Amino acid sequence: MPSTPKYRLLTPGPVAVPERILRAMSGTLLHHRSPEFIPIFNEVRAGLRKVFETQRDVVILASSGTGAMEMAVANLTKRGDLAIVVRGGKFGERWAELCESYGVRTVCIDVEWGRAVEPDAVRAAFRSHPDARYLFVQASETSTGVYHPIEALAAITRESPDRLIVVDGISGVGVHKLPMDAWGIDCMVSGSQKSWLLPPGLAFIALSERAEAALERCDQPRYYFDLRKEIEGQAGASPAYTPAVSLIMGLQEALRLIHEEGLESVLARHESLARLVRGAAEALGLGLLAADSPSFACTAIRLPEGVDGKKLEKTIRDRYGITMAGGQDKLSGKILRIGHMGDVDGFDMLTAIAALEMALLDLGHPVNLGAGTRMVLELMRTARTAR
Amino acid sequence: MPSTPKYRLLTPGPVAVPERILRAMSGTLLHHRSPEFIPIFNEVRAGLRKVFETQRDVVILASSGTGAMEMAVANLTKRGDLAIVVRGGKFGERWAELCESYGVRTVCIDVEWGRAVEPDAVRAAFRSHPDARYLFVQASETSTGVYHPIEALAAITRESPDRLIVVDGISGVGVHKLPMDAWGIDCMVSGSQKSWLLPPGLAFIALSERAEAALERCDQPRYYFDLRKEIEGQAGASPAYTPAVSLIMGLQEALRLIHEEGLESVLARHESLARLVRGAAEALGLGLLAADSPSFACTAIRLPEGVDGKKLEKTIRDRYGITMAGGQDKLSGKILRIGHMGDVDGFDMLTAIAALEMALLDLGHPVNLGAGTRMVLELMRTARTAR
Repeated sequence: MPSTPKYRLLTPGPVAVPERILRAMSGTLLHHRSPEFIPIFNEVRAGLRKVFETQRDVVILASSGTGAMEMAVANLTKRGDLAIVVRGGKFGERWAELCESYGVRTVCIDVEWGRAVEPDAVRAAFRSHPDARYLFVQASETSTGVYHPIEALAAITRESPDRLIVVDGISGVGVHKLPMDAWGIDCMVSGSQKSWLLPPGLAFIALSERAEAALERCDQPRYYFDLRKEIEGQAGASPAYTPAVSLIMGLQEALRLIHEEGLESVLARHESLARLVRGAAEALGLGLLAADSPSFACTAIRLPEGVDGKKLEKTIRDRYGITMAGGQDKLSGKILRIGHMGDVDGFDMLTAIAALEMALLDLGHPVNLGAGTRMVLELMRTARTAR
Repeated sequence: MPSTPKYRLLTPGPVAVPERILRAMSGTLLHHRSPEFIPIFNEVRAGLRKVFETQRDVVILASSGTGAMEMAVANLTKRGDLAIVVRGGKFGERWAELCESYGVRTVCIDVEWGRAVEPDAVRAAFRSHPDARYLFVQASETSTGVYHPIEALAAITRESPDRLIVVDGISGVGVHKLPMDAWGIDCMVSGSQKSWLLPPGLAFIALSERAEAALERCDQPRYYFDLRKEIEGQAGASPAYTPAVSLIMGLQEALRLIHEEGLESVLARHESLARLVRGAAEALGLGLLAADSPSFACTAIRLPEGVDGKKLEKTIRDRYGITMAGGQDKLSGKILRIGHMGDVDGFDMLTAIAALEMALLDLGHPVNLGAGTRMVLELMRTARTAR
């Protein structure tokens, strides 16, 4: 064995990128206004619409996912407006911070980290604040591994015609069923380094017709994030500013892969990989942070008392070559997050659980070695879901 | 010969990317917080400082160059402030629009497209508007191929300690001598798809100590573009938001290439390529838009009366496979811009001129076939400057 272990990326983003996509990104760099690039751009737009399950346009942005979240706030709101924010993790906090930056008043529904928001809590918040114009929420809250019940939340938002639901689908789109048009989602954003099988650097945003009408009301300063310019420009395959050409070339290939597999299969793949890890954690006697409403983007495993999460993460990385994610902020050191997105399959989940078992033993925590991995195999055999 | 001509990219950005860099970008995708990525990030930061010629930090952003321009305005200004803007092309207009978006009042010095600003005009503007706090200017105005006299403008700005000079070095840094510290430039931005030999998707920004102090005064809404967070985070190799990892892996290789060649040689390379094209245009009896103060990033050739610039650009592209840039806005159809940045050398300039000669003949414009290319060869022999 070589002295350095093989590098394996199993975080909830960035994700491992398939060879086919790496090769596509390293092709001859095209000019974004050259006739060779236009069909790529248009193919990509059509492919994005299919994954967002919308007839509306999906705008492509050169930024991290946070840039698309900011684009939503900067284009839909007016200073002084009131927004309901579901705050159940680091990314819920980000919606609140973004609103604050833009002078939007917030009513935050604070949800315990690891729990999904109760639809009734959102209904009650809208009732207490009839002037609230927006609901900001994550589909998949990456920091806790929770899925929030978007279909129900969209329906509640729709009870008044003047309200918009804005969904952070950064680790949700292409992972969970989130049919934008069918559910009446007004704004949904995503980011390339998640289910899209790409490196970070691209973000996506789409608006419902209702949300597009709200653009006219908005009085926020915006330039790079001016969605009006991008909607108009990108309809003619002409983004307002130089797009990230090589990543878009990769996106073309990624969308081909996704559509070859089929969206339903892609969603099922994430779900079944998540199930393998949840099953293995339980077989090892480890708790799950988000047992009630788990995200299929990543699984957050609670670490036993006495196990130092940072040391565990480091052991798994240094000794076994696998990069997983620890907890953020108040969950720091207390959980381990294993990602299910990107170029990973059931055997990668098996490897992740194997490394976790060994690293727990390395740190002196008693483990029934093989119990987790055996469960992964049993579930793989039952489901035949591994790619 | 194959029926489709070989693709050659000769615009003033995006530029042709060397194979070595394409390969570096297609390596295994690393997590941005993994120990393997930290040394890359730190190496890149050190390399950027050398090209910016500054002891200060250079912040890396996932966006187009315009994002870094917005970051400058959004972090240095206060609503109601007054700024002097040099407006001598499309990108000068962009500074004015950005200021307007953020409620910054502007006094625009309108310079004829194709001319450099007179330092005396800037001095006079500061005299008439003693409350002006900023000078916004391009080093190289890509839309016209003009270089503005940054050293003199920085000195004029420095005549009062309360003023800041903000330089769009998107197609200037790594092309022209622009020593940030030595000249007293307060803020300088650049973008990856120019002299940096990379695809689009990364932007760079650096602040002087004076400019960093101004961050505290700023009252603009900003989140993704919040420079305070990035300065602090990136000093610890921890950007606030997921960085564009694959492009940064490419940047590591690009900076190695740049430093192997040596910054002085890199600048001289751009200058000598620009000289080849200027000489050839003159030998063909074609005028130069920016004869007095030409940029070394690109050369804007005036097209003769009766030649349709759009048709010429299309002929060069469709028949000869070379993508050059036409004119923008009021220069549309009137000029042709040939880029000198990226993976190009003297023989590429020769090819560009050859295609131009042939395409002019194709469109029925009389040309002394070979006069331009011969001049390129003569200048190459004299200077021995081609890479």
